[in-house]
Amino acid sequence: MFTIRFLPSGRSIDVSSPISVLEAARLARVQIESTCGGKQKCGKCKVVIRNSMPNILPPSAPEKNLLGPDLVAKGYRLACATMATDNLTVFVPRETRTKRQVILTSAQELPSAGSIKPPVLPCHVTVPSPTISDPTADRERLVKAMEMEHGFKVLYTDSLIVRKIPALLRSTKGSVRILVRKGNEIVGIGHQSSNGPYGIAIDVGSTTVVAYLVDLAKTKILSIKSSMNPQIPYGDDVISRISFCQQTEEGLEKLHRSIISCTNSLISEACKDIGISKKEVVEVSVVGNTAMHHFFLGVNPQFVSLAPYAPAISSAQEYKARDLGLEIAPSGYVYFPPVKAGFVGSDAVACLLSTGMYRSRVPSLMIDIGTNGEIALGDRNSIVCCSTAAGPAFEGGHIKWGMRAASGAIERVRIDPHTLEVSLKTIHNNSPIGICGSGLISSVAELIRTGCILQSGHFNDIIKTPRLRKGEEGSEFVLSWKQENPTGHDIVITQKDIAELQMAKGAIRAGISILMESLGRRVRRIYLAGAGGNYIDPLDAQTVDLIPSPSNCQIIACGNAAGHGACLALVDMKKRRDAERIAGKMDYIELAASPRFQDLFVSHMFFPKAIDS
Amino acid sequence: MFTIRFLPSGRSIDVSSPISVLEAARLARVQIESTCGGKQKCGKCKVVIRNSMPNILPPSAPEKNLLGPDLVAKGYRLACATMATDNLTVFVPRETRTKRQVILTSAQELPSAGSIKPPVLPCHVTVPSPTISDPTADRERLVKAMEMEHGFKVLYTDSLIVRKIPALLRSTKGSVRILVRKGNEIVGIGHQSSNGPYGIAIDVGSTTVVAYLVDLAKTKILSIKSSMNPQIPYGDDVISRISFCQQTEEGLEKLHRSIISCTNSLISEACKDIGISKKEVVEVSVVGNTAMHHFFLGVNPQFVSLAPYAPAISSAQEYKARDLGLEIAPSGYVYFPPVKAGFVGSDAVACLLSTGMYRSRVPSLMIDIGTNGEIALGDRNSIVCCSTAAGPAFEGGHIKWGMRAASGAIERVRIDPHTLEVSLKTIHNNSPIGICGSGLISSVAELIRTGCILQSGHFNDIIKTPRLRKGEEGSEFVLSWKQENPTGHDIVITQKDIAELQMAKGAIRAGISILMESLGRRVRRIYLAGAGGNYIDPLDAQTVDLIPSPSNCQIIACGNAAGHGACLALVDMKKRRDAERIAGKMDYIELAASPRFQDLFVSHMFFPKAIDS
Repeated sequence: MFTIRFLPSGRSIDVSSPISVLEAARLARVQIESTCGGKQKCGKCKVVIRNSMPNILPPSAPEKNLLGPDLVAKGYRLACATMATDNLTVFVPRETRTKRQVILTSAQELPSAGSIKPPVLPCHVTVPSPTISDPTADRERLVKAMEMEHGFKVLYTDSLIVRKIPALLRSTKGSVRILVRKGNEIVGIGHQSSNGPYGIAIDVGSTTVVAYLVDLAKTKILSIKSSMNPQIPYGDDVISRISFCQQTEEGLEKLHRSIISCTNSLISEACKDIGISKKEVVEVSVVGNTAMHHFFLGVNPQFVSLAPYAPAISSAQEYKARDLGLEIAPSGYVYFPPVKAGFVGSDAVACLLSTGMYRSRVPSLMIDIGTNGEIALGDRNSIVCCSTAAGPAFEGGHIKWGMRAASGAIERVRIDPHTLEVSLKTIHNNSPIGICGSGLISSVAELIRTGCILQSGHFNDIIKTPRLRKGEEGSEFVLSWKQENPTGHDIVITQKDIAELQMAKGAIRAGISILMESLGRRVRRIYLAGAGGNYIDPLDAQTVDLIPSPSNCQIIACGNAAGHGACLALVDMKKRRDAERIAGKMDYIELAASPRFQDLFVSHMFFPKAIDS
Repeated sequence: MFTIRFLPSGRSIDVSSPISVLEAARLARVQIESTCGGKQKCGKCKVVIRNSMPNILPPSAPEKNLLGPDLVAKGYRLACATMATDNLTVFVPRETRTKRQVILTSAQELPSAGSIKPPVLPCHVTVPSPTISDPTADRERLVKAMEMEHGFKVLYTDSLIVRKIPALLRSTKGSVRILVRKGNEIVGIGHQSSNGPYGIAIDVGSTTVVAYLVDLAKTKILSIKSSMNPQIPYGDDVISRISFCQQTEEGLEKLHRSIISCTNSLISEACKDIGISKKEVVEVSVVGNTAMHHFFLGVNPQFVSLAPYAPAISSAQEYKARDLGLEIAPSGYVYFPPVKAGFVGSDAVACLLSTGMYRSRVPSLMIDIGTNGEIALGDRNSIVCCSTAAGPAFEGGHIKWGMRAASGAIERVRIDPHTLEVSLKTIHNNSPIGICGSGLISSVAELIRTGCILQSGHFNDIIKTPRLRKGEEGSEFVLSWKQENPTGHDIVITQKDIAELQMAKGAIRAGISILMESLGRRVRRIYLAGAGGNYIDPLDAQTVDLIPSPSNCQIIACGNAAGHGACLALVDMKKRRDAERIAGKMDYIELAASPRFQDLFVSHMFFPKAIDS
């Protein structure tokens, strides 16, 4: 038995067999950045061993390579590559700690209560007492009274409801409030004066999880809580989590349990926020990409990552929330809108629900920006969709100074066209410590506008400024001098970072092009959605050619449209039917099967709005 | 902390606060007889304290009274009345130990597979693989194939089924066996060569629990297992268990958990018996009296014991077995036939199902003998039923030498009319240690036939035999001399025992009379059912006037009809509908509300077939 202690948190874990420092950190609940999920590829999980004579092997050649000679000299190691076999004290530097993400939780309004068909209806009823001449059972008198007073024909009651009926009927003298779900089941029974009913909509992103607590009767969002997806330590993107779950015993179980427990925490927080019991929450809706959807259900998404990328399940489902371990009202349900394909999840369906483009005559394009860019195009008559692996650039991955949209991230850049001086806007206005997705797009857009970047994506060597210089990895542009920030380094955009952005946007634009070919009409409206979407300036997005720039086209940054769509599906049965129809009628184009994708991808890697040479 | 040790088992329990010896025995899982449930009323829980100077209070006056001076002198105590506050060694004499009951498990045949509508159908199906041009989700391809090949329209799948689909479709190349329940849900999925499906029928008696393992496809009973109801330590009859559950914190939970865990053990044993996994059991049916039914569901039956005796729930129900903690196939169901009233349970409905009298033109009487006698009368046009509190006499309660139908119990008695010599038949032909219900009826019938008992129920003083004598509690008849048995005492039938029998049969006969008045036709067939029913000689039953003796009437001892009915409901949906119709059309007569019951009860306490004086 030996102990691995983490500084500065002081958390420790006792283990009895050799273990990587990264795995030990997971067990000790110390959050360490890891984009590759522990595969010694991303180099994000840098730590410093603080023992004077640690009983560990020296770094291997690949580890040294990822760290670079500077950090190796300073004693840095990769947590995933360092095996602990004896007591170890591990310092986790600031840049390695997983930061709390700034999450877009502002949601659009929900439709008014009068215009919807709620899944759960509260009904007040008076149940007569039994008599010696009519000693009908408690449940049967209740069901009969519901038929007489409210016209419900057959009402199913699970055993947890039945258990409550006898005592409640006596303590209330038969005056009770019943929650009827979909007209055929009693999911709650209580005093006439009971609150609610309440519901929770959950948007499970690969990176962030957001919970919306909603008053189902008033269709009003009462509280919004969010959290990092606790699956991040198992891999930053969908593919690395799927491979974790393939390679690790009980990997699926770990991923499933972590998202359920995160959801339960969010439910608790939201309920605490408005002072209700989580047992008053009777309905949940959950959206996410297909892998998140499967992990939430405890279903292995292994075949989602293998051609032909078939999901395990795609149709809309509802289950007793307790069957998935969700801690709400014991008889409550959880609803899952349909997913469309392996890489077009119920989050995309929810985005469409939120934009309403499936009901509109206006030909619209919807882009949900994330590690996978989900794209849909169409109108009330037809919608085509695809998914494109943009890579983690928009979430800070594979970018030298990339980080998530957390405090201190550069989110907006302005470059003076004359002096090429830089002004930065950071999240929470903290000193800059890195660049998030919108900051990268903003930087590149400004570098294009000021002629610092050419159509090819290369830096323009003609520009003379100390900010544009040769670095270790080729040309780079300095956004923040080391004396202006707390990292001790210049924060730069490298030629390689620009190439990452070019690949990401090339993939999305190729997807858009393939979809546009199928539409045959001009797009008149573009919805830019996704956790990144709200922060991306539509103009910047057009400057870097992330989205097309048709004339007479409205561009709507619609924030967390997936979360809004989840709320709509939560409160309104008609929206659930809409979601099911959307998934049914939407055509899916598998880009991997399109022979033209590769050509389009290459041709869209350029910046058409930059100067030519 | 102190220790209570039980001999001869050697089991012990450590406790930290004062506790009755009876409760300590429960915790230590030492089975001690207790008819009254620990209320210091039945005097069955006799033990001997073996410490030389035990730190306990001397027996109180009521305790002394129940034990009698002989046993008090020998150091006997009542386990329920003795509080342990320090280390204690407790000897449990043979007569106090709960014995394993002989349970009637021979059942009638089940209908042939061709004539029934099974709840769960096995279907073989071949599911095509996904392709890049049609990457439909695994579950949706499966559901579609089921529609194409077998015509099922919409099939619900719970999340536990969904989890299995992806890997199974690949490992079987799409050739799978699906278990479809009621045409609308997949409850099992496996290889083409899977066994079963299997089902389990459970008959929950107050005293015994019987499980029947059935091959659902072949409608064949493969194994029968039985056990004492583990709720017995909490009270021997329904009323004392209900009051335990009122007076004890978590009493309901204890009663619920104990019957569920007993059922799980029986399921395991039965599956082990035929070498299958309990995960291959996909359907369960459960019958019992109303209190047992409620305890099984975890529903408090408190109002069943209070006028107007309304059950908490009476209609037929089905739940996921896992929701009640039953360890069968994870997506399997448990079906509960309806109960009729607070004291006419689903066991009575199952008896009617078994006899088939609800489909017959022959006016029939059905009596289910037990602590509560359930009686039904009628034919295909109408059935009336009632329940009568016969008391525990038929199960050995309140009888001086009474015991359950366990090894060594006297079950049949013959008395030579000339010599008045007695020959005994005991269960397993062991030396006699007590008298079970059928033994009591047989004894009294023979005493009536030989003129030893008068119509009034009194012993006939004119008879001269050393066997008929004055004992401590009045006249008594010796069945077994102390030198002929291992108890060290003469085993006798007392005048008080006869009075108990008179009250029990008086109650049943009064119930029968009230029902018969409503029929207005002669009864042509009598079914004698119940755990006791199979052993009771129909002639003995008529001699003691437990059942009427109409001319031209067939008497059928139909054994454990409730268990047989549970098997019918398990295998056949049509029988479930029948059970629901029976409960719907049956008229219930609450004897407590009948002004004539008391008079009839008194008039039926006599023995009309005995000599007059």
